[in-house]
This record gives sequence, C-alpha cells and structure tokens, in this order.
Amino acid sequence: MEYSNSSNTDDHPQCCLEIAMEVHRVVPPPHEIAIRKLKTTLKETFFPEDPLRQFKGQPANKKWILSAQYIFPILQWGPTYSLNLFKSDVVSGLTIASLAIPQGISYAKLANLPPIVGLYSSFVPPLVYAVLGSSRDLAVGPVSIASLILGSMLRQEVSPVNDPVLFLQLAFTSTFFAGFFQASLGFLRLGLIVDFLSKATLIGFMAGAAIIVSLQQLKALLGITHFTKKMGLVPVLSSVFHNTKEWSWQTILMGFFFLVFLLLARYFSIKKPKLFWVSAGAPLVSVILSTLLVFAFKAQRHGISVIGKLQQGLNPPSWNMLQFHGSHLGLSIKTGLVTGIISLTEGVAVGRTFAALKDYKVDGNKEMMAIGLMNMIGSTTSCYVTTGAFSRSAVNHNAGAKTAVSNVIMSVTVMVTLLFLMPLFQYTPNVVLGAIIVSAVVGLIDIPAACQIWKIDKFDFVVMLCAFFGVIFISVQDGLAIAVGISIFKILLQITRPKTVMLGNIPGTNIFRDLDHYKESMKIPGFLILSIEAPINFANSTYLNERVLRWIDEYKGEDHKTQSSLRFVLLEMSAVSGIDTSGVSFFKELKKMVEKKGAELVLVNPLGEVMEKLKKSDESGEFMRPDCLYLTVGEAVATLSATIKVQPSTDV
Amino acid sequence: MEYSNSSNTDDHPQCCLEIAMEVHRVVPPPHEIAIRKLKTTLKETFFPEDPLRQFKGQPANKKWILSAQYIFPILQWGPTYSLNLFKSDVVSGLTIASLAIPQGISYAKLANLPPIVGLYSSFVPPLVYAVLGSSRDLAVGPVSIASLILGSMLRQEVSPVNDPVLFLQLAFTSTFFAGFFQASLGFLRLGLIVDFLSKATLIGFMAGAAIIVSLQQLKALLGITHFTKKMGLVPVLSSVFHNTKEWSWQTILMGFFFLVFLLLARYFSIKKPKLFWVSAGAPLVSVILSTLLVFAFKAQRHGISVIGKLQQGLNPPSWNMLQFHGSHLGLSIKTGLVTGIISLTEGVAVGRTFAALKDYKVDGNKEMMAIGLMNMIGSTTSCYVTTGAFSRSAVNHNAGAKTAVSNVIMSVTVMVTLLFLMPLFQYTPNVVLGAIIVSAVVGLIDIPAACQIWKIDKFDFVVMLCAFFGVIFISVQDGLAIAVGISIFKILLQITRPKTVMLGNIPGTNIFRDLDHYKESMKIPGFLILSIEAPINFANSTYLNERVLRWIDEYKGEDHKTQSSLRFVLLEMSAVSGIDTSGVSFFKELKKMVEKKGAELVLVNPLGEVMEKLKKSDESGEFMRPDCLYLTVGEAVATLSATIKVQPSTDV
Repeated sequence: MEYSNSSNTDDHPQCCLEIAMEVHRVVPPPHEIAIRKLKTTLKETFFPEDPLRQFKGQPANKKWILSAQYIFPILQWGPTYSLNLFKSDVVSGLTIASLAIPQGISYAKLANLPPIVGLYSSFVPPLVYAVLGSSRDLAVGPVSIASLILGSMLRQEVSPVNDPVLFLQLAFTSTFFAGFFQASLGFLRLGLIVDFLSKATLIGFMAGAAIIVSLQQLKALLGITHFTKKMGLVPVLSSVFHNTKEWSWQTILMGFFFLVFLLLARYFSIKKPKLFWVSAGAPLVSVILSTLLVFAFKAQRHGISVIGKLQQGLNPPSWNMLQFHGSHLGLSIKTGLVTGIISLTEGVAVGRTFAALKDYKVDGNKEMMAIGLMNMIGSTTSCYVTTGAFSRSAVNHNAGAKTAVSNVIMSVTVMVTLLFLMPLFQYTPNVVLGAIIVSAVVGLIDIPAACQIWKIDKFDFVVMLCAFFGVIFISVQDGLAIAVGISIFKILLQITRPKTVMLGNIPGTNIFRDLDHYKESMKIPGFLILSIEAPINFANSTYLNERVLRWIDEYKGEDHKTQSSLRFVLLEMSAVSGIDTSGVSFFKELKKMVEKKGAELVLVNPLGEVMEKLKKSDESGEFMRPDCLYLTVGEAVATLSATIKVQPSTDV
Repeated sequence: MEYSNSSNTDDHPQCCLEIAMEVHRVVPPPHEIAIRKLKTTLKETFFPEDPLRQFKGQPANKKWILSAQYIFPILQWGPTYSLNLFKSDVVSGLTIASLAIPQGISYAKLANLPPIVGLYSSFVPPLVYAVLGSSRDLAVGPVSIASLILGSMLRQEVSPVNDPVLFLQLAFTSTFFAGFFQASLGFLRLGLIVDFLSKATLIGFMAGAAIIVSLQQLKALLGITHFTKKMGLVPVLSSVFHNTKEWSWQTILMGFFFLVFLLLARYFSIKKPKLFWVSAGAPLVSVILSTLLVFAFKAQRHGISVIGKLQQGLNPPSWNMLQFHGSHLGLSIKTGLVTGIISLTEGVAVGRTFAALKDYKVDGNKEMMAIGLMNMIGSTTSCYVTTGAFSRSAVNHNAGAKTAVSNVIMSVTVMVTLLFLMPLFQYTPNVVLGAIIVSAVVGLIDIPAACQIWKIDKFDFVVMLCAFFGVIFISVQDGLAIAVGISIFKILLQITRPKTVMLGNIPGTNIFRDLDHYKESMKIPGFLILSIEAPINFANSTYLNERVLRWIDEYKGEDHKTQSSLRFVLLEMSAVSGIDTSGVSFFKELKKMVEKKGAELVLVNPLGEVMEKLKKSDESGEFMRPDCLYLTVGEAVATLSATIKVQPSTDV
C-alpha cells in the first residue's frame, strides 16, 4: 500500500501528496450569540420561504401595497386583469360548475347532509377563496373523502335520520373547527404537520377511502332501503348480501347504464386530455338525462328513489347553529381536526401541483389560512367542509383557467341554480348520484403509483398497504393514524440506527469512499476510517458507541493477518449535522475507549455546530488539538502516516 | 476567480487541476438482492452487537459451551474463580448488605409496602442476578424511584391502609408484568426503547423524583400522622403546614440529628473515595443507634413512631397472589410497564457505566432479560420491583467487588437477618428510615451535570427543566412522558428542517467547505454548490424543494451584480444517507425546476442506497448521465467549468 508510505510515491503524481501535506486548519465557526442563533433556527423552521424578503429595501408606501397584496392575492393580479383572461376563466368556470353541481349534491349525501348543503358549499367558499387564495387553478368545493369522514364520524353519536337538525348543527360546528384548525396551522406556521402525510400514506389512504366511498354507494346503486350504518368492507358487504330481496332491478339497470357512461367518458378524457370536457360534462348530462327519464316514465313509482323537493334560494345564515357547548362538543372538535387536516392536505397538495406545472408559487402557510378562513366563513353560511378538489382542479386547469375568477364564475352559476333551477332536481334519481360518486373516486385509486413505490422502496409500500387495509378493515381515521405512526416510527428507527461506513482510499487520489461501494478503494494499514452518516443524539449515541467499538474489534481481528496494528481511528464527520449533550458524551467516551485500545481518535471535518459544542465541553482542549483534527481524510492520512513507521503490509 | 478558468492556473499548482480533471466514475453499489438487504438492515437494527460473532468457526461442542456461557454468564467466570477474588467479594458483599438492609426497609415503606418486603426483595433477586447477569458490579435490590412510582400508581385505585392484602397482590402482579416487559424488550431486541430516555431527561427526572421522594419523608421526619395521599409539591407542602400541631419535636430532633450524620458521612465519602465505607456503613449505624435510643428511653411512648413487630423467616411464596383478571388488571399492567422501563433504564445505565470503567462488555438486551427474569421470579417469592441501584453499585465497586459473588454474599447476609435478627428492628424509629431515604436520594440531584447541559445545549436544558417541573408539579409519570415527548419532537423537527449549506472552494485546493464557516472559501462563478445534510424523506422533501429554490433565487439575485449567470447547481450528497419515494420525487421535480431556470442539476457523491433508488426510478437515465454525476465537488467543478466560457468576474 503506497499511499501512507511517503518514501514510495514514485508511481503516482508527487504533487498529490504535496497538496495533501499542505494541511488546512480546521477553524471553529464564526461566533454567533445564542439569541441570534435561536432567531436563525426559528426562521428556518417556521419561515423557510422567507415571506418578508420582498419587503426589504422598499419605501414605506410600497410596503403597504405589498402587505395588502400579501394578504389579498387578488390585488396582485386584479389590476392587470384583461378581457382575454376573462374569456378563458368564463369557459373554465362554466365547465367546473357543470361538474360542481352534481358532485356537490352527491357529496352532501355522502356526508349524510341534505343535498342542498352541497350546493350552498359550492357557492360561498369559492368566492372567499377567490379573494384570499394564491392558487390560480384550485377549484373549490366539497370533496369526497372529507365528506365521508365528516359523515361517518358524526354518525357515531348522532343519527342523521332521527335527529337531522342536531346532525346539521354538528356538521357546521365541525366545519367551523376544521377552518379554525386550518387557519391556526397556517398562522402558527405549522404547515409542516401536513408534510407528515407521505405520498405512500396518501396513495394507500386514498385508495382505501375510494373503496369505502364506493361501497357506500351500493345502497343507491342497488336501491337498498335498509343499509348498514357501518363503513367497513365486511359489514357493508354482509349488509348488501343479506338484503338481496330489496335489490331493485330498475335501479340497478339505470345505475349500471350511467356508471358505464361516466366511466367511458372518464376513460376518453384520460386517453385524450383535449377531450377533458367529455368527462367534465358527463355528470351533468347524466343528471339531466336521468331526471328526464324519471319524469317521463314516472319511474319514482317503480322503485327508483329520487332526491325529492329541494328548498329554493341562497344560503341561509347558520351562525346560530354553531354549538360551542354541550355533550357533543368533543366530537365536533375531533371531527373538525380530522377533516380539517385531511382536506388541508388535499388542498395544499393540489395547489402546489398546479403551481409547479405553471411555474408560480403557492405559499403553503398562507394557503392554509385562506382555506381555513373560507371554512370558518362557510360554517356561518350553511356550508360544510370544502377545499381544493383534485379532480375538479384538473378539469379547471385543462379548461384553461387563468385566475381565481373561474371560481367566481362557478359560484355565480351555482347561485343561479340555487335561485331558479332547484325544482328541476326534484326527480333526479339517487342512483345517478351514486354513479357520479363512484366514477369520481375511481380516480383516487392510483395503481401505477403503487407499482412505482414497490419498485423504489419496499418499506414505503408496506406503509401504503397499512393505510389501505387499515382504512377498509378498521376505519378511515384509524387507517390514516396507523400509516402515519408507522412512517414516523421508521424515521425514528433510522435515527436510532444511523449508518457507519468504513472508507478506503481510491488509488492514485486523495479521495476516500465506502469500501463496500467502491470496490477499487483500499484500506490503509494502521488506519480505521469511519464515516458516521447522521446527527448524533440521545437516541443513537449508545448504539454508535457499540458499533464503532465493534468496527475496531473487527479491524483488530484482521490485524493478526496483516501484521500491522491499528494506530488511528478517523471519524469522517461531514454528515454529522448536529449533536446534543449525549453526542458530546459519545465523543468523550469513545476517545477514552480508543485510547485504551492503543489507538488515537482523529476527527475529520466536524461541521460548525458540532465543533462549537465539542469545544465548549472540552476544557482540556483534547478534541481541538491540531493533530486530532483535520479538514479532509486525505490530509489526515498523509500527515499522520508520516508520523508512524508502517510495517510492510500484505493486503495491497 | 482562477479556479474555474483553466487558461489561468499559473498561480497555483498545475497538478491539482490535473488530478481533478482525471475524473472518477461514480459507480452504482454492488447489487444486493432485496431479502439479503432486509437481513442486513434487521441485523444492524436489532443485533448491532452481533452476539453470534463468537460462535463463528467454532467446533460443535465448543458452540454448546459458548451457548451455555452466553445464557448463564456465571459459567464464564465461575471455573476460574479464586480465593483472592472471593476475599474481595466478601468485603464488598458485606458492605452493600449493611446498606441494603436499612434501604430495603425504607424503600418498601416508600412503596407503601410492609417493610419486610424490602428485605425479601434483597434476598431472592440478587441470587437470580448472580446466575444470569453479566455485570460484575451491579448491586441488586429495591430502588427509590421505582418504589415511589409503584406505590403512587397503585395508590390511585387501592388504599394500602384499608386494603393491604389487595395492595400487596397488585404490587406483586405489577412486579410480574414489569419483569415480563423487561424480559420481552430484551428478547425482542427492543432495548433501543431505553435509549429514548436521554441523559438530559433523566437528570431532570431524577432530580424531580428525588424532591418528591424527600417531600414524602416529611411525614416521618416531622412525625405527622395525617398526611396527604398526593405526591405533588403543592399538596404535600400545604398538608405539612396545615398540620403543624401534629409536628413532634422529639421526632424532629432525632430526624435532624441522623440526617446531619448521614449527610456528613456522604460528604466525606465523596471528598475521599477511599472512605466509601463511612457512607456505606452510616445507615446501618443510624438504624442500630436509633433503635438502641428508642429501646433505652422507651421513646415510642413519647411520640416517636416505630416499625413495630416484623415477621421472622424467609420469603413466603407469592405466586398465588398474582392476579391476572379482575378490575385492577389494567392498573397492574400500566404500573408494571412504567416501573419496568424506569428500573430497566437505571439497571442498564449502571451496568454500562461500570463495565466501561473496568473495560468489559455488558450486552444491553441480555441484561434486560436477566433483570426481567429476576423480577418475574421475584414476583412469585414476595419480592417487588428490583434492579441495579446506582448508589449501592458504586459502593460495591469502591469496596472492590470482583464478580457477582458479592451479590450472593449480600443475599446470604440478608437471609441471616431475615432468619434471626428481625426482632431487633421492632424498635427502629420510622424517622431514621426517612432520614436514610433523604440522604440516599440527595445524590440523584446532579447540579454540575445540569450546568454542563446548559453550557452545551440550551434545548437539552429545556427538556431537562420540563422533566423536572413536570415531575414535581404534575406527576412522576407525566413529567417523564412530557420530557420524552419533547425530545422526540425535537428530533422530528430536525428531520423536517434539515440543514442546507452553500459551499465554496478553499483557494489553492480542491476542497469545498461551508462558506459561512470557512471565511477564506470562495464562490465559483456560474456554480451554486449546496450540501444537504440529512436523509431526504416525506417529512422534509417539500421543505428542501422550497429551500433549494430559494438558494437559487438568492444566487440569481446576486448574479446581476457579478455579471455571471448561474449554469450549474451542484448537490453534494455525502450526507444524504437515505431517501424514500418522496425523496426520489424531490430530485425529479428539482431537476425540472432547475432546468426551467436555465441551469443544470449535478449530483455529487450520492451514496449507495440513494443511487440505487434514483437509478430504479429513472427510466430515461437522466440522473445517471456521466456529466450529471461526479465523485467529488472538485472534479465536478473542474470538468464542468471547462465546458463553459466564464465571463470575467468581479467577486474575487
């Protein structure tokens, strides 16, 4: 092994060692006072996007304008709004309205609420969002999963059939709390909570929820009147097959026809994105067609259940229905929390996706406040939980939406419907609403993404399966909680067992890399070079101590064969981004242990924070001695190997 | 800036660039099949100390012997046991016995159990440990904190005064469960759970518990008969000062005298470790002296309460007292879990500390099984929770204990006491037991360590304070839970906000380091070199995306001044020890975003796992193109800067 033997360097460039020998001092980082450091940390943690950056160096009146624009993004794009943009927005607004009306009615039924609440929820929230929201593509309204969770959680304590007013009160109260939690998360800059729902978790969760939602539609699709109140796969299927005598062939026929129609429309739109209007218009066409059919054949007398009379007129106020006391308050808060976080996750993810596509920015925390305020205002005007829906936003984007004005157009269309067209829905059959829901949630089952996850990361796949099976066999909330718990457990496990890797020299260079990965790299006799690839803290310092000592023992075991003895243990610390008090103790103990074994501990490239803490705890200066501290492994090896007489080694 | 301009290198060694230009290929790691990788991961996670290492390559009969020695460590040192060792062990065994007898009686009272149970618990468990345990210094017996927690948790549901038999049954049942959990943790290789109690948490928790324990002793020290059943600082002090008329001056006088005596003895032993026998013998001397005093002056008739008659004889069997059904089962399990983990933490920490001092090894998981079995056997022989006590083990070590035989000697001494000396304790006053407890737990308050923590890590200090105040104001269990929760929250927060650092070139070298830390390092025009210092996963991929884009925007903001435009974004990934599916998406999205900004994304030194996952997800091979992938930053910069014509820059 030539590298460490400075008398024998004629077969690779002389200059290399010279450079390596010109040792660079490891300096402590520039001093920063504690309060300033805390400020930096807090800023990086809670304001990573630096929202005040644009205000720097601006005159006072400009700052006022920027502040107003920051709070009301409409002021950013409003002044430059043009007729051309308006034309695009009208087209896309009408398109999503045609989707929002039937979906609104359907989703309200999914949440066990009166169908009209779904339309109310498609009127006020989009207007609020248009003023406060920063996404240009988000189509706001009720969504399937939040509707399902709201309905199923409230039904645990209150029956929507026996006690509809109380149920409605709780729904509005939960919506208020959902909005409150969402706005608080945004205001407290805790948007990072949403990040704990990983993509794998969401894919499993969405697929499970889609199946649960679809199963619930079997009631409408088969025309069953006595249906289970439970949500799980097992109780629903057993309820379906124990009530076969209630199945109505007229309903099944109609349901089958419209379901096939909707799925075909969906299929064509996926194949040719230009035909987005096919799937966008299909639900409304289905509603109109089926309503006409029922009306023409008086089908409601032949076992096809219809929506029935709907109230006409705009949203009635509902602030008097919010209940902040009583025995159901806990349930409202819990429901608000769960639906709030779920709908927030969907809204923020959708906003970010389309912002990335069109290359503009969506501020997560601001967006949370917008969605939260929208729901708080909504809860006082007879709306239940709303957010940016993925499928409708995709249609909005494909239809050419340019600004939030498309939401306003949709809102106005819904308003016209509420004012004048409500009687037309009287004969709309429930079965077609079921078909609309099923065709909408089918898109939540993303099998290619699941395959991709299997290919890349087996553990993520397991998390996904847990979410999926948890949702369909236990409950929607528990499935989600289990998946999040497992994801966090995995991270904690990774922290308690950080990787340590033995490095070797790539011949002819001063590069040191993982011996297992780079097969050409070689050990240097007398040196054990380890790289620790994680911050060192209380959760892993014990493990690391044991692991490093095992590396040393293994190395010493090999010593007998190579005839050279261990002189230096080098810890390459470029990846140790931080330590705590346990980490400091780790180094002190390790130094003692290494010295007991007749070797010396050398630290390579400790980063700023690590160095500072080691220095503070190190009264005797043993870690800061220049012969124990190097900037690169190459320099350390070159300098230290000059100090020892290396035995002729046999492992080259 | 000369570095990137290859035509202008005459002022630093030509060879440096030559070496850098000789580019080393980044190769994917050697292929490993999934099942094998899983095996490695599981082994590193659950068997980090590689317990089977010693069996490798041994003949079959040797393997049998090694297995027996592995299970019963007594077989390792037993055959070579000598008279010299025995002499040392007898001295130390007698010394800890003189400590164990008064402490056993006192701690049993702390747990609201009959004093004799404390002696039972100092007889059987040490014998079991001597056979199974691998520590040579651990002195086994009841300890203050586990006694306190056991007593206070059980008292929540059952009164030890009104229902002493049920209370005893629950204590034995809890002990059984504690042992069961401890043995299971060891058997399932989940010893890492103990690691989540950080040093800072433990220091705060111990200090708080010491104060709570001392407060409880005010009952005995002041001679109060009507004392509160609560544990908190506030209720105890208010109880003490509302019952001032119950204070007994004789008791106070006696308590004060013996407390001063014990604390002085402790002080001398700390000052001169050779005088360890002063503090080791002081409790027994106090007990004998105070008993003689009471006996001589018939002080029990003058308001000094005494222990009273104690049963003679060895441990009665108690397996018929274990209750695995009934309404208190949940409480027993919970108490067992909490006391089990707390006492395990103490036992393992003590074992490791002394093993490190004497340079032998204690296997954490094996030790857990030993302590667990000891408690399970103990619960069937009238013993309550025991573990390795820190103070007694320190005395054992100082007294020259060589093997677990010192535990046997102690056990035999306790046996003799149980058989013949019990009547002597009849007149022992309770006040002296209180003084013994206070003088023992004072040592748990470690103020120098708290100062050290404040100096090194402010956040750890906050965790410590939370544990401390949580214990004294809320409850022992909750204080601990809060501190552990905060510690884990901190780790999670660190993961969601990993550090990203901009690197610069240290002039005249190909070393690249943090620009803020190494002030002499310089930016290279056209290059933005970022180091990401954490694994990338679902919890931080969104943040990292935003943060990297902000780095680019900031860089571009400076561009206008330096006249050079951003061409390459280099990600130095030596510290990215792993990624998941979200991490893979992060790179794909980032590549798109960087390209939209007119630059190119270059990865430097991706580690094995990261590279593998990127490769799997990367059908088009865009990440694996050799011009986007380098082994060192130096090589990347040298190669890429040759491909661009750098504008004359002004920032040098």
